[in-house]
Amino acid sequence: MPDNFADRLLAAVRAKRTPACVGIDPVYARLPAAIAEQRDMNDEMDAEAALDATLEFCRQIIRIVAPYVPVVKINSAYFERYYWEGVEGYYELVQEAAERDLIVIGDCKRADIGHSAEMYARAHLADPDFSNLDDFVGPDAVTVNPYFGLDGVKPFIDVAREDGKGVFVLVRTSNESGAAIQDLVGPDGMRFCEAIAKQVAEWARGEGLVGTAGYSCVGAVVGVRDRETAIKLRALLPQSIFLVPGYGAQGAGAADVGACFRSDGTGAIVTASRSIIYAYEDTKYLEMYASEWEKCVEHACKDFVAELARVVPVT
Amino acid sequence: MPDNFADRLLAAVRAKRTPACVGIDPVYARLPAAIAEQRDMNDEMDAEAALDATLEFCRQIIRIVAPYVPVVKINSAYFERYYWEGVEGYYELVQEAAERDLIVIGDCKRADIGHSAEMYARAHLADPDFSNLDDFVGPDAVTVNPYFGLDGVKPFIDVAREDGKGVFVLVRTSNESGAAIQDLVGPDGMRFCEAIAKQVAEWARGEGLVGTAGYSCVGAVVGVRDRETAIKLRALLPQSIFLVPGYGAQGAGAADVGACFRSDGTGAIVTASRSIIYAYEDTKYLEMYASEWEKCVEHACKDFVAELARVVPVT
Repeated sequence: MPDNFADRLLAAVRAKRTPACVGIDPVYARLPAAIAEQRDMNDEMDAEAALDATLEFCRQIIRIVAPYVPVVKINSAYFERYYWEGVEGYYELVQEAAERDLIVIGDCKRADIGHSAEMYARAHLADPDFSNLDDFVGPDAVTVNPYFGLDGVKPFIDVAREDGKGVFVLVRTSNESGAAIQDLVGPDGMRFCEAIAKQVAEWARGEGLVGTAGYSCVGAVVGVRDRETAIKLRALLPQSIFLVPGYGAQGAGAADVGACFRSDGTGAIVTASRSIIYAYEDTKYLEMYASEWEKCVEHACKDFVAELARVVPVT
Repeated sequence: MPDNFADRLLAAVRAKRTPACVGIDPVYARLPAAIAEQRDMNDEMDAEAALDATLEFCRQIIRIVAPYVPVVKINSAYFERYYWEGVEGYYELVQEAAERDLIVIGDCKRADIGHSAEMYARAHLADPDFSNLDDFVGPDAVTVNPYFGLDGVKPFIDVAREDGKGVFVLVRTSNESGAAIQDLVGPDGMRFCEAIAKQVAEWARGEGLVGTAGYSCVGAVVGVRDRETAIKLRALLPQSIFLVPGYGAQGAGAADVGACFRSDGTGAIVTASRSIIYAYEDTKYLEMYASEWEKCVEHACKDFVAELARVVPVT
């Protein structure tokens, strides 16, 4: 029986002494000139060239941040944009990050019913069951959309239980218009995202899902739009680790995300994406390192870790 | 300016005189022996062999049903299961169906926020903008999950407006446990799926989205679990074409789906998947054609069209 994902994640956080996660969602137009201008990579309209440059950038990002953070989150959308070759690149990056002992979250937000959800769970979470792909691993965890209810999520939970992997169910997203859906109020004054949280809490305490530290391999994506909601969701989901997106570029600050943690400093990982991977666009870092983009990224990653440490002590 | 998707869809339904759609969600274990036992295709555990057999089956299905139905729906999950080569196969089938003048719905149920949703919309709905993929088309329409609210769906709607394509937003799904989420009741007695329907109706009447027949290129996925809800959602979504899944194998019958149509017989397309593509497992057809699986599929497709015609007259 493989180790429980929550236990593995907590151990990784302890080892790096930070719950910081770097999100990888690369856009060709924002790549550093040093990469985008390389021969055979300087054509945004050529899918192969653009993808090659994008993957080269992502490999560098993974290499740069690996010493500092325990987790990376790779957003499938930015690779699917390059069709099947992009998808191949996505899986290559998953291997690359796994080889650097990072916990890898595949941010693919899949959902469907029954048998279709099983197919997604096999494709996006399980280690391949094909004989010709046996040196290849799936991500450690995956993001899942709850709109289909339990039987849309269950196939992912089943893979998580068997393979020691994790599932982060979308509960609240960090975007503005998500509120129009997720904050609809139910009959008992409970908002829709809270009703979803209650269901996820139930799923999370299922047999074989809770690790030795009391956390489940079924976590929740909780974007912080306001502190009160974060506190409420934290209480509704006592056994779930939160994946908190949107730190930095999407506006959430260290003080806000603090509410996603338990008082012992566990219970959440916090993702910053654009503010790290595009740090070379930020005058603050640009002034220090000019065109040495890797140093900008490294410095921004260390700043992110330091900033989080001020609100969330990791022991 | 390309033609509005709703107008194109209605014309295709009129031309074939049926609102029937065949859903393609192939599972290797259920393929006809004649295909799965072919040389180089008889190994379920070899991703390439299993995928080759699956794609061969799907190409035959498309060829068989193309004379009878105006639309096919291809479920991405069953191809993603074979990683990037499966994804390549998925896009090949989209081309194959388009070449046979079928309207193609890419059933990928994607969702994300902002820029990520844009990436999904480019990958899964738009015709490629890359110079090296210029002989290649995206699906005519796509299924989308509403959990992120408008800004998760808007990038798809923008592509639909510009490229004459369509978006089917998940409103109600046909699975049992979907009710635990979608039927949560709000303070005004309105269920969650109805609140979503109201929002989709608003999105659907946006500028440049409604075609000459009064239908929008923004439709809705409405699984029929009960007739009353279908009637209610039909009233809430006057300008949206319904994509009704789950006919046959998932239990919805012709009489139930009738409620998804307007009184003039327009307003919905009805999808049957497993009951058609695996018709050779059904004793009824097996007794007629024995191992001639193609004839079983063809007959089941004609029966599906005939059965629908009894409840939904297409003029």
